Amino acid sequence: MMYTPLNSAHLDQLARIVGAAHCLHDPETRRAFGSDYTEDFNFPPEAVVSPANTKEVAAVMRYCHEHVIPVTPIGALTGLSGGALSVYGGVGLSLRRMNRIISIDTDNHQVLVQPAVIVQKLQEAVEAKGLYYAPDPASRGSSFIGGNLAENSGGPRAVKYGVTKDWVLNLEVVLPTGEVLHTGANTLKNSTGYNLTQLMVGSEGTLGIITQATLKLIPRPQNDLLMLVPFPSASSACEAVSAIFKAGITPSALEFMERDAVQYTLDHTDAAGLDLPDDVEAHLLIEVDGKPPEVLMQECETILGVVESHGAGEVLFADDQAKKDQLWYMRRRVGEAVKQHSIYKEEDTVVPRYELPALLRGVKNIGRAYGFSSVCYGHAGDGNLHVNIIKGEIDDRTWKEELPKAIREIFELVRALGGTISGEHGIGLVQKDFMDIVFPSSSLELMWAVKKSFDPRLIMNPGKVFPQHFWNMQGEEVTPE
Amino acid sequence: MMYTPLNSAHLDQLARIVGAAHCLHDPETRRAFGSDYTEDFNFPPEAVVSPANTKEVAAVMRYCHEHVIPVTPIGALTGLSGGALSVYGGVGLSLRRMNRIISIDTDNHQVLVQPAVIVQKLQEAVEAKGLYYAPDPASRGSSFIGGNLAENSGGPRAVKYGVTKDWVLNLEVVLPTGEVLHTGANTLKNSTGYNLTQLMVGSEGTLGIITQATLKLIPRPQNDLLMLVPFPSASSACEAVSAIFKAGITPSALEFMERDAVQYTLDHTDAAGLDLPDDVEAHLLIEVDGKPPEVLMQECETILGVVESHGAGEVLFADDQAKKDQLWYMRRRVGEAVKQHSIYKEEDTVVPRYELPALLRGVKNIGRAYGFSSVCYGHAGDGNLHVNIIKGEIDDRTWKEELPKAIREIFELVRALGGTISGEHGIGLVQKDFMDIVFPSSSLELMWAVKKSFDPRLIMNPGKVFPQHFWNMQGEEVTPE
Repeated sequence: MMYTPLNSAHLDQLARIVGAAHCLHDPETRRAFGSDYTEDFNFPPEAVVSPANTKEVAAVMRYCHEHVIPVTPIGALTGLSGGALSVYGGVGLSLRRMNRIISIDTDNHQVLVQPAVIVQKLQEAVEAKGLYYAPDPASRGSSFIGGNLAENSGGPRAVKYGVTKDWVLNLEVVLPTGEVLHTGANTLKNSTGYNLTQLMVGSEGTLGIITQATLKLIPRPQNDLLMLVPFPSASSACEAVSAIFKAGITPSALEFMERDAVQYTLDHTDAAGLDLPDDVEAHLLIEVDGKPPEVLMQECETILGVVESHGAGEVLFADDQAKKDQLWYMRRRVGEAVKQHSIYKEEDTVVPRYELPALLRGVKNIGRAYGFSSVCYGHAGDGNLHVNIIKGEIDDRTWKEELPKAIREIFELVRALGGTISGEHGIGLVQKDFMDIVFPSSSLELMWAVKKSFDPRLIMNPGKVFPQHFWNMQGEEVTPE
Repeated sequence: MMYTPLNSAHLDQLARIVGAAHCLHDPETRRAFGSDYTEDFNFPPEAVVSPANTKEVAAVMRYCHEHVIPVTPIGALTGLSGGALSVYGGVGLSLRRMNRIISIDTDNHQVLVQPAVIVQKLQEAVEAKGLYYAPDPASRGSSFIGGNLAENSGGPRAVKYGVTKDWVLNLEVVLPTGEVLHTGANTLKNSTGYNLTQLMVGSEGTLGIITQATLKLIPRPQNDLLMLVPFPSASSACEAVSAIFKAGITPSALEFMERDAVQYTLDHTDAAGLDLPDDVEAHLLIEVDGKPPEVLMQECETILGVVESHGAGEVLFADDQAKKDQLWYMRRRVGEAVKQHSIYKEEDTVVPRYELPALLRGVKNIGRAYGFSSVCYGHAGDGNLHVNIIKGEIDDRTWKEELPKAIREIFELVRALGGTISGEHGIGLVQKDFMDIVFPSSSLELMWAVKKSFDPRLIMNPGKVFPQHFWNMQGEEVTPE
């Protein structure tokens, strides 16, 4: 079956469901909702539909299911894998009006949210009640919790506190058919039927629309210490990472930045206040938390011993909140700085953490072979390295035709090291044709069968996650029900 | 399609795959593999087939798929929901020969295991290397890690460290068709395709056979303190539970035992060394860990303040390892003691922890209305209450016909409190006809569609998880491919 292009009758019906003011199809709105933070793509939906509540979401989905209209869920458009881009047109379903924190349950340490709550606002709201929601992607100041759930976002604190998936108890979901269901219960433990909660998390909007989420909270950790550790070589920094864990310490953040990542950030953003001596090739930013200050100091002593034995230079301790904020501000601006510096492609590689030095070495070798430079940074404690390949002076043809081969080599290396091709950004549009590297066709066929169980007409976020041969731009290969 | 009863040709073929010594169909072996720890059931498989490796598992599955022979995976037979019982006969696939710890990766803090590794042996092996695998169901001395994965087992330490699902990075799985695949990668983060790992965990052997698991480890927590706190009423003990968390403490265990649970344990097992004064109606067993002793002492002071304000009696501190072992020994024997005391049914209820007092009150009220007594204990910090309904003097007719109505009322209460019907035991055979309480038919149909994606001929552990109308004993409702 082919996807149905939107006509004025469709638009009228959709406007009837959500109100005319929330069903927009002027070129400007369409364009604005056609780009996220992924490269320079623009895939405008045919209409931007913004429901006010679960009931309206369900009515929109029922209508689109009936008429075989593609639906792409849209959060804050901060994604890095193109997951929210309407590559088949159709309805761009913006959740932005569903932005309430419904309740903070201080008795059970839970929070009930709508999908368009900004993550940092959620964190601040629960922290005001002495509670804590840990996942903190760099985009937390603007990204929606719904998008974090869809992509299974991480962030620096994942190394101790886990990623988004580890904080989800229960989801309200609208299926592509318009049915509304809850995936689980509001409990810390659950052995009741299949784990549809974890199947939804990280499914990148291809199985249904998350309209409410019950998230776990914990008591807010007291105290933290932060230090910035310079290294004379990137590989010695990487080698120190697993050594810190082997010394019995679980930091609450363990971030890696190559020299260029810091240099670009100082050059292209308003982050400041850091010297970058010539002999520094990489930094680790290390935080410990959740214990009395004197215990954290002991942990820092242990860490100091480890990093010094790996050749670290003079460690900068952030001993007041202003210095901590300054260092975190810099770290959070790295992605933006790389973007300012040049056209680039970011690969969200992840390996077991001890393999980081091998990954970094391999990336640089592949870069030399293909003639590109890269700047690497990321959540080293998780083995999650963001590899930013810089276009710089590379000509367009090489960038377009040769680079995918280099990326394939990087991903093959990642797989050989026991890792995979996305740690926290998702597959979305840009990585889908590399999925064969990490999954045999039998696994992809199995995921596709699961997809069809949820979405028999394949209207839900088409063109994502699965390699292109599962889709085509005309929808001709779409095999509904 | 009907399931095919095993004939001698099938047995010959299966014996050819695994060796005649590992394909047994004598009545004694069949009977031995037909019971687990669930009530007094016996459902013998037609043959007990014990493959030596993944390749043999795959060959058995391929053969059974081709011939539409039901396959029930069998671990250590310690389950409490009848998940390993061969209710449709067919092949009982015992994993017992696949019992090796393949490797402990001290660089990446991971362990690779076969399914029949006994959980406690796994724990001891990694602790010898300074590492820690936390999930510790009461059965850990005999249960297999594969069964823990299938049922998503918990245990006392789940309250701080999470349940089995939180420790799984990657699984090798044999699908019902005989295909072998890995569900993920050996990484702490993964946003690459659907989370088949978490779909397999807790799927109770209905989707495939787990033949290897990569599990996460952490540095072994240093130091712990344990205390036993008596209360003059069960409800005040329950009320203290959420108050402890609200005081900012996350204990590493927070267990609840009604008076009778302790009394039976002293009466029916070799646990000893505890006075049970007349005015004690319940105990909390509380552990804190992972910090220097003086910090743990401060946490205990905070906890003491909380429990005293809830009417606690004199607290028993376990200040040496022998006393700790004694208290834990008693706690782990409770289930066995209840079993010794009377025929019983155990319900694995779970609610948000603040709702525990309401749950306990409700269970007792329902008991009074139906004329049964119950003894309750469990993982109170998780809101996970094991409700043991005692047969005692109840006549067989009432036990058989009236009790299911009472259980239904308990589960409806659980649901009303935001909870669900199994926290860590699974649905298996005994809870499947209560699934409608927590899931609408649309959710169950969706799970059934997922099931069929994995297992088109429905040979995999038939008769479990889904309500009976999805199955029937002749297999006539089985609708393959």
